Amino acid sequence: MNKIVLIVLCLIFSVTASCDNDSSSVDKKKNVENKVVWKMASSFPGSLNIIGEGALNFVERIDQVSNGFITIKFFEPGALVPALEVFDPVSTGAIDAAWSTPGFWAGKIPAAQFFTAIPFGPSPGELLGWYYYGGGKDLWEEIYHKHNVHPVQCLMISPEASGWFKKEIHSLEDLKGLKMRFFGLGAIVMGKLGVSTQLLAPGDIYPALELGTIDALEFSMPIIDKDFGFYQIAKHYYFPGWHQPFSTNELLINLDRWNALSSSQKAQIETTCTESVVKSLAMSETRQPEALEFYESVGVTLHRWPDEILEKYKEAWDQVVEEKASENEDFARVWNSLSAYRDKYKVWKSLGYVD
Amino acid sequence: MNKIVLIVLCLIFSVTASCDNDSSSVDKKKNVENKVVWKMASSFPGSLNIIGEGALNFVERIDQVSNGFITIKFFEPGALVPALEVFDPVSTGAIDAAWSTPGFWAGKIPAAQFFTAIPFGPSPGELLGWYYYGGGKDLWEEIYHKHNVHPVQCLMISPEASGWFKKEIHSLEDLKGLKMRFFGLGAIVMGKLGVSTQLLAPGDIYPALELGTIDALEFSMPIIDKDFGFYQIAKHYYFPGWHQPFSTNELLINLDRWNALSSSQKAQIETTCTESVVKSLAMSETRQPEALEFYESVGVTLHRWPDEILEKYKEAWDQVVEEKASENEDFARVWNSLSAYRDKYKVWKSLGYVD
Repeated sequence: MNKIVLIVLCLIFSVTASCDNDSSSVDKKKNVENKVVWKMASSFPGSLNIIGEGALNFVERIDQVSNGFITIKFFEPGALVPALEVFDPVSTGAIDAAWSTPGFWAGKIPAAQFFTAIPFGPSPGELLGWYYYGGGKDLWEEIYHKHNVHPVQCLMISPEASGWFKKEIHSLEDLKGLKMRFFGLGAIVMGKLGVSTQLLAPGDIYPALELGTIDALEFSMPIIDKDFGFYQIAKHYYFPGWHQPFSTNELLINLDRWNALSSSQKAQIETTCTESVVKSLAMSETRQPEALEFYESVGVTLHRWPDEILEKYKEAWDQVVEEKASENEDFARVWNSLSAYRDKYKVWKSLGYVD
Repeated sequence: MNKIVLIVLCLIFSVTASCDNDSSSVDKKKNVENKVVWKMASSFPGSLNIIGEGALNFVERIDQVSNGFITIKFFEPGALVPALEVFDPVSTGAIDAAWSTPGFWAGKIPAAQFFTAIPFGPSPGELLGWYYYGGGKDLWEEIYHKHNVHPVQCLMISPEASGWFKKEIHSLEDLKGLKMRFFGLGAIVMGKLGVSTQLLAPGDIYPALELGTIDALEFSMPIIDKDFGFYQIAKHYYFPGWHQPFSTNELLINLDRWNALSSSQKAQIETTCTESVVKSLAMSETRQPEALEFYESVGVTLHRWPDEILEKYKEAWDQVVEEKASENEDFARVWNSLSAYRDKYKVWKSLGYVD
């Protein structure tokens, strides 16, 4: 058979995509898969440090890992659907996939918030332990599958900062009546302490701060907040971000489309996402010090909350989580699963770690 | 074209493996790879909790991720080459790959020890930060490439325990003259404090303890040590394992064979190994509490070193690392790279973390 004929057959072959109807056997023997081409909406712009960047890295890497057989096209927020409305179109199948964070679905699925961040939650080892071997991943999948959506943990970042304040905070009294942009479960905690919170989309925060619509805000971590320029207006930056010790983002996939993948394709997406988790965590750990140096050079004061204030946040969080658990069954299930894991883990944490 | 003809062509196609000589373009368009079948020697038995288990999980997963196009056959320690002698045969190409841990090559490559564990070293986020974005991975590869070996970080475990002692240790004086099995850089630290250390292979430790050839030992972590039964003889178990806060294992690949892989195959091995890192860490975090409960049920006393003794270990370590760095250039390069990363990271650690 000459080469030209073979090339032609190759082309035919690539269109037919498999040699017979028994795709699994061909699958295994020939490494020939149905080609997957998906549209992925994003809640975060591709230019966003680590979080948006991670989406672009992921689509490049899954192309490589799948040898070009899984193509995921990244669409900027708003290009397909609005930034904070990517869940429903994935659920209906209007779009194949989305790059987002579970906390955005707090209204629809309160339990989802735990899969972005857990206030006063565990460090990565314990968190991943609960996720893989303590029931976390199974619960997340079960809860999302009710909505015809399959979640894959696909990014992780270091602790966030606690927030930017125009005025220094000397005591909890100073928080009362403040208007603050805040995300997730931490917002309810701040509400307990008298702060009036609202969730603004990233692009709306700076103007709100400038106009005095808000007095304070939490958004993300030093390197990410830097690009938004909050430091130009608020000069007091507080740590640690007790409300988001570690945060994970999700790749959302329409469940029917997920189920239609071969086991190899599922494994490729899972491993590529896990690599993204590791690299984004590594990236965010590496980039914080330079951002902190920058802030000091432009006259921002970096504060660490005194222990007694952190304890008050913790007390308020303990109340919030009890209340929320009594209101929603899935929220309670996730919290109970996590709490049981952490109770058992305590003895190991206290003995096994140097500090 | 009928189906039978197409199937026949598929078979031809799978043998010819690519449509023309431009393998990279075919590679991309047809997802057809050269099939890789490798023999992997192991330093750890497949039955060993987490560490050996991780090898078996890895070979299963890479088969799945590569859709059967990368087959790595696991061989028990001694089946191809002796457990602690897997490096050289990978270097020469006598075997394709090996599952081991860098600390075993301390004699040949002192710097390798840092890629198993760093006494008083960082937590996973900082460690992975240095590894991916602070130069760690590049240094590891560069140093091993001189030996024609390519390393891939392929497993991570939680802190080890500090060791088993037949007699309770009340002060550093009690350590003097003890005969102890110890691995890695920690062994040199213990030597500074008057302990007489030796490195015994896993299977030789229990009999040595029973016969009184050794008075104490460190091997691994609670769940792994349990299978070896040390608790039947030594009743005092000390924590934390300052000498191995986190430990990583390696997949060693003959460099020529690594270079012969397609970019897709390299990516498949890397992502599958990174997933193994995450899952083994998660696994080891999850399994320690049950092992600790078991020990308490059989009369083992769990001790935590008092802070003043940990400080003495730290002081001895500071001396050891300086001495070793003055003796070996690569050791110094790795240490300097890590130290520079950690110096810069300090400000973030102190501000960003709740505890």
